[in-house]
Amino acid sequence: MNELEFIDRLKAITTHPAARGLADDVAMMPFGRHKLVMTHDMMVEGVHFLRDADPADVAWKLVAVNLSDLAAKGAKPLGLLLGYGRTSGDRWDAAFVEGLKQAIDRFAVPLLGGDTVAMGEGAPRTFGLTAIGEAKGHIVPSRSDAKPGHAVYVTGTIGDAWAGLQIATGLLQSPDIEITASLLKAHTRPMPRVEEGRALSNLVSTMMDVSDGLLLDASRIAKASGVQIEIDLAEVPLSRQFQSLLGDDQEARLKAVTGGDDYQLLLTASPETVLPIALTCVGTCRPGSGLTLHSHGERLELPEHLGFVHI
Amino acid sequence: MNELEFIDRLKAITTHPAARGLADDVAMMPFGRHKLVMTHDMMVEGVHFLRDADPADVAWKLVAVNLSDLAAKGAKPLGLLLGYGRTSGDRWDAAFVEGLKQAIDRFAVPLLGGDTVAMGEGAPRTFGLTAIGEAKGHIVPSRSDAKPGHAVYVTGTIGDAWAGLQIATGLLQSPDIEITASLLKAHTRPMPRVEEGRALSNLVSTMMDVSDGLLLDASRIAKASGVQIEIDLAEVPLSRQFQSLLGDDQEARLKAVTGGDDYQLLLTASPETVLPIALTCVGTCRPGSGLTLHSHGERLELPEHLGFVHI
Repeated sequence: MNELEFIDRLKAITTHPAARGLADDVAMMPFGRHKLVMTHDMMVEGVHFLRDADPADVAWKLVAVNLSDLAAKGAKPLGLLLGYGRTSGDRWDAAFVEGLKQAIDRFAVPLLGGDTVAMGEGAPRTFGLTAIGEAKGHIVPSRSDAKPGHAVYVTGTIGDAWAGLQIATGLLQSPDIEITASLLKAHTRPMPRVEEGRALSNLVSTMMDVSDGLLLDASRIAKASGVQIEIDLAEVPLSRQFQSLLGDDQEARLKAVTGGDDYQLLLTASPETVLPIALTCVGTCRPGSGLTLHSHGERLELPEHLGFVHI
Repeated sequence: MNELEFIDRLKAITTHPAARGLADDVAMMPFGRHKLVMTHDMMVEGVHFLRDADPADVAWKLVAVNLSDLAAKGAKPLGLLLGYGRTSGDRWDAAFVEGLKQAIDRFAVPLLGGDTVAMGEGAPRTFGLTAIGEAKGHIVPSRSDAKPGHAVYVTGTIGDAWAGLQIATGLLQSPDIEITASLLKAHTRPMPRVEEGRALSNLVSTMMDVSDGLLLDASRIAKASGVQIEIDLAEVPLSRQFQSLLGDDQEARLKAVTGGDDYQLLLTASPETVLPIALTCVGTCRPGSGLTLHSHGERLELPEHLGFVHI
């Protein structure tokens, strides 16, 4: 039984409509006149972060990735519950708490409770975070309502976190301190697009956060909605820092759209809809299925890996 | 920095009133006209369950201990989010899912979502569960409102889970199959008192679940409320099965009240309050502080350990 078979077994016992068939990043439940939006993500040392990672960055990312799931539903974060599996290392724990404080202050979301356990000898540090939010609108975006003709948009720039990871692991380097710092920060301190998600959620046909790579995540919307999504590589927004380090050619752009960990919002909307914040149109939905990639009007082959595949 | 110092650091950044200063088992937050009650507990292989434990029992207990926290607040469970840290072992995972299904069916609470991760080589299985519930009444019981003169009650019987653990670990045995099975089940398949909690929550002055031992948990109510609690050991309800195996003397009763894992409700209420379900009065709140133990009118020394102390 691999991970997907295991997930299938869990799906078989997860029949409540609020669970959305485990096909979404969040659970959603009507509660009074509002909707509760709930998500839970785990991070394990040696799997999701390196042993020598800055503990404050680990804490920040744990909060950010969960809030990013809420952002994609336009949900206002209400609170967090932390499961903290400790091993040895007082300084590590103290630095984690410091990073957690920075994140909850920055994102204005309270830590409400949780559990602390000692993991036992030789075990990896293991953390879980539950984020609970509130969606007020009538429409909470899914991945399945994109229609042919709808435009595909992203917030911010794509590829910075991937470039930062390359710097962090020594695979790339820049002589420019400001560029290095900016890209590293995109990797270590992702910013969930909570305000943007709330501004957009009642206007879009689909929305999700880009965690595994723009192409892979776009292909998920295409599949769930039963449309073909055409991405124009030349239109994908790159930061000045990314371009300084990697250039702006097709190879650099393919790195950006398959790198992942962007935590930008990817959304579709009718082209007539006026969207209230700055976005970049990176493609179009068409009748059909799957993903196609174009650049300056020319069709490109899809790369072998559309993104980072994990469970 | 030990666990308590670490918790103190977390408390310092946990200032939202919904967190109740991390002094309670749950977080509680007004939501529309209702109250959201949230709890998160972790279980780690080798720490909270044995490597040879039945995976279905592990799943059941993970659900039961979280629902027991909701029960103590009179909250109706709305849903669960599971964090599942896998290692090797397909049969293990399949049996866990089966036990999870038994628990969510039995307690009528849906699994809503969560996360699955591969833990990496040699790591212990690590699970987290978030339970979310809804408290409807105006009064959600805390631990701090017991008053001198209030009576102390428990649901069900005390000590069965402890006796079952002794059987499971080979320290005790009974020639009677029915007794063995019944006590083992109290240990492996605890029953959270959800319905009882909902029936009681608006009538009690304090309520909590007995997880660490009746005496230890009663001492926590005494401390939080600023009262002395006098427990009458002779009044503590023991099951027929417990008495058959361990007898009914003072030594057996001391085992029962310090053993823990009962997941019964411990509560205080004005003696005039008519409580709608069967309970056993096991003591009284008096002016003063701390815990005293009596039996047939005679004061006893407190045992060295009041229960199972952990974080």
